[in-house]
Amino acid sequence: MKRSAWMTGFSAVLVTVAGALAMQASLAGDKPSKAELEVEYRQGLYTVIAGNFGPLGAIAADKAPFDAAEVKLRAGRVAYLAPILKEAFPADSSGVGHTAAKPEIWTDKAGFDKALQAFIDSSAALAAAANGSDVGKIKAAIGETGKTCKACHDKFKAKD
Amino acid sequence: MKRSAWMTGFSAVLVTVAGALAMQASLAGDKPSKAELEVEYRQGLYTVIAGNFGPLGAIAADKAPFDAAEVKLRAGRVAYLAPILKEAFPADSSGVGHTAAKPEIWTDKAGFDKALQAFIDSSAALAAAANGSDVGKIKAAIGETGKTCKACHDKFKAKD
Repeated sequence: MKRSAWMTGFSAVLVTVAGALAMQASLAGDKPSKAELEVEYRQGLYTVIAGNFGPLGAIAADKAPFDAAEVKLRAGRVAYLAPILKEAFPADSSGVGHTAAKPEIWTDKAGFDKALQAFIDSSAALAAAANGSDVGKIKAAIGETGKTCKACHDKFKAKD
Repeated sequence: MKRSAWMTGFSAVLVTVAGALAMQASLAGDKPSKAELEVEYRQGLYTVIAGNFGPLGAIAADKAPFDAAEVKLRAGRVAYLAPILKEAFPADSSGVGHTAAKPEIWTDKAGFDKALQAFIDSSAALAAAANGSDVGKIKAAIGETGKTCKACHDKFKAKD
């Protein structure tokens, strides 16, 4: 996938997400701005990533039984979705709406890109491990991915 | 992917999504219920699907230029995400929160499952078309997928 295609498509996303999210906007009683729609898209991505990474974290922490098919499925999803986050932080979404995204994401773009790439790389390594059968290696890879989540959150996500 | 693995993993999702969404809960000032988290996950999925299908709709309607790489990328994402919706309508999420999900999703489960499967199938056909180079066929497949979105919304999604 060429980066140029992302850029080409991005303005189209902004127009069309508007329609797709009209229901939520309607429920909230306001028409969302372009930047609010960008934030919705970003939060949607993180929600789906978290909903799939969570069970992996529970397995790595021995709070849930190891299930090879489950791990493979969810690790694959996280690895699939992680790179899409690269499209999810347009400059005009800084400080918009109910967000925990810190301004440093945009003021320290190189630092943020590096932290995000670490998550992308670790989730790819986790998906690769999950395709194997070494449970110890898989759990370690879950832990490594969790560390890259935390490292990015510590620096670029506001505290709860 | 076996359905049994979905079911095995589902309770774990419910526990762990709680942590993942803690930020949003905190911003809203309330601790979300299990069912509210299920709704968040579902809406997140639809937001990401819509954010990727939207540009395809614009291309099919000649409101955006045809870009083969863009189409292939976004069609692939929609086809990837669509089947995950099967996990996104647990019974206890009926009527919960700010949702447009009509009760018929649960009271007419066979009808809903059929409508959802039509979307899954049409998005798979679209992704297959997008891997080819027949622009007319690709645009037609986008239209067919849009119809399965609308058919399900007409029956199972409350009006804006």
